[in-house]
Amino acid sequence: MPRYAFLIEYNGAPFHGWQRQTGGQTGAQIGGQTDAQPSVQGALERALAALDPAGPTVTGAGRTDAGVHATGQVAHADLARTWEPFRLTSALNWHLAPAPIAILHSARVADDFHARFSAIERRYLFRVQSRRAPEVLDKGAVWRVPFDLDLAAMQAGAAHLIGTHDFTTFRSSMCQAKSPVKSIDDITITEAPITGGKEFQFRLRARSFLHNQVRSIVGTLERVGAGAWQPDQVAGALRAASRAACGPVAPPQGLYLTAVGYRQDPFAP
Amino acid sequence: MPRYAFLIEYNGAPFHGWQRQTGGQTGAQIGGQTDAQPSVQGALERALAALDPAGPTVTGAGRTDAGVHATGQVAHADLARTWEPFRLTSALNWHLAPAPIAILHSARVADDFHARFSAIERRYLFRVQSRRAPEVLDKGAVWRVPFDLDLAAMQAGAAHLIGTHDFTTFRSSMCQAKSPVKSIDDITITEAPITGGKEFQFRLRARSFLHNQVRSIVGTLERVGAGAWQPDQVAGALRAASRAACGPVAPPQGLYLTAVGYRQDPFAP
Repeated sequence: MPRYAFLIEYNGAPFHGWQRQTGGQTGAQIGGQTDAQPSVQGALERALAALDPAGPTVTGAGRTDAGVHATGQVAHADLARTWEPFRLTSALNWHLAPAPIAILHSARVADDFHARFSAIERRYLFRVQSRRAPEVLDKGAVWRVPFDLDLAAMQAGAAHLIGTHDFTTFRSSMCQAKSPVKSIDDITITEAPITGGKEFQFRLRARSFLHNQVRSIVGTLERVGAGAWQPDQVAGALRAASRAACGPVAPPQGLYLTAVGYRQDPFAP
Repeated sequence: MPRYAFLIEYNGAPFHGWQRQTGGQTGAQIGGQTDAQPSVQGALERALAALDPAGPTVTGAGRTDAGVHATGQVAHADLARTWEPFRLTSALNWHLAPAPIAILHSARVADDFHARFSAIERRYLFRVQSRRAPEVLDKGAVWRVPFDLDLAAMQAGAAHLIGTHDFTTFRSSMCQAKSPVKSIDDITITEAPITGGKEFQFRLRARSFLHNQVRSIVGTLERVGAGAWQPDQVAGALRAASRAACGPVAPPQGLYLTAVGYRQDPFAP
């Protein structure tokens, strides 16, 4: 059976998260009922089932949480027949509507390509807006804080997290990874004016992340930006290797999975 | 009675437009019912009525259509008592929630300040996204076309519209302006990459615009960008001074009123 990779964008707001909750059954297969907890994976599997009666399983590179968005999620599935990628993309988008999920590209890949295990890099963006007025046009797309943040202080705090560390402080108690040791290659934080305030963008890059790691890091750096923490306290929190040493976890709606890297780009023309 | 000016952002999607439909009564005043056709003006007047029992009337600089957004609308109202602007902003935002309207600034202004008649400039942004995949994160915030557009051709077409002209071709048949002659000071069109495609931003600046003028211009320039019209045909359409010579009117969800200019900025610190 030919394997296909998909480059996927979604608005996480209406979803319980990437992962379907039931063990192998999508809502549509259970008597056509609506999912009690709709998932992005479930919606994709329903769209694929409309094209392929075998009901292919979809495997994603990153299991984003409820409310987290993606502009560059990657997934793969084995289909019963060969498809022209362009037609497959169009057919899937047709079946996905009106769910806020779009297939940006489809590509035939080798049988041993695995969206999750072949990935060698993940990139995330976290958007924080600092302004007094409530968010309107960016509602559900950013985390708003009603005070200014100190960019240089956040950058100094973030510098302590670059490299290979035990990230126990910055992972969810639900995290299933065997080891809390991860390598963060880069954390870039930028600031730009927006109507009535500023937007801070946090861009993180690593081979892989622990559960809630990005939101735990951004939530802690926000405390540094607000002046509640000194930048050096981030180093102390990391060394503590204790969940209790973490700042508050940032809310999901500011987080975007923007890219997944592979040795060979499956979507290269 | 002291007069206040407000700098306002809103998501136009749920509104019938800026203007309330009834003659001086808001939905809340008619027995507390929900507006059959909610308007931004009506929502603002309801929020003001919660602070000021006299029920002030709100006058806006630009009467945006249904679905059109604003990041820099300006309005004024006369209030019964004096307010500290910062407190007035907070109180209004509290009463506006959860409507997608935010007051960015409030300012005490002279009694002869008029949001509409004192304005000497309006700026609009129109966002067009060229990509095959449906819009997801920018749904309701852009006009998507599923093919590429030629930036240079659109810029060449737009050049014919700069200056003072009879814009009969580019105004709605419902337009109530006495004269179809207007001066467009600038049309700047830019292109930037987005996930899976490109975004074209049209920025227009004029003392004032006719009804549907921006959407008529963008809809016509999109035809030029798509190659269906030659850039010079824009000059011919303008000279025809006939609504029938216009291209299709662009949909409202890509349009933003971004700024209103006055001789003296009412919100200057």
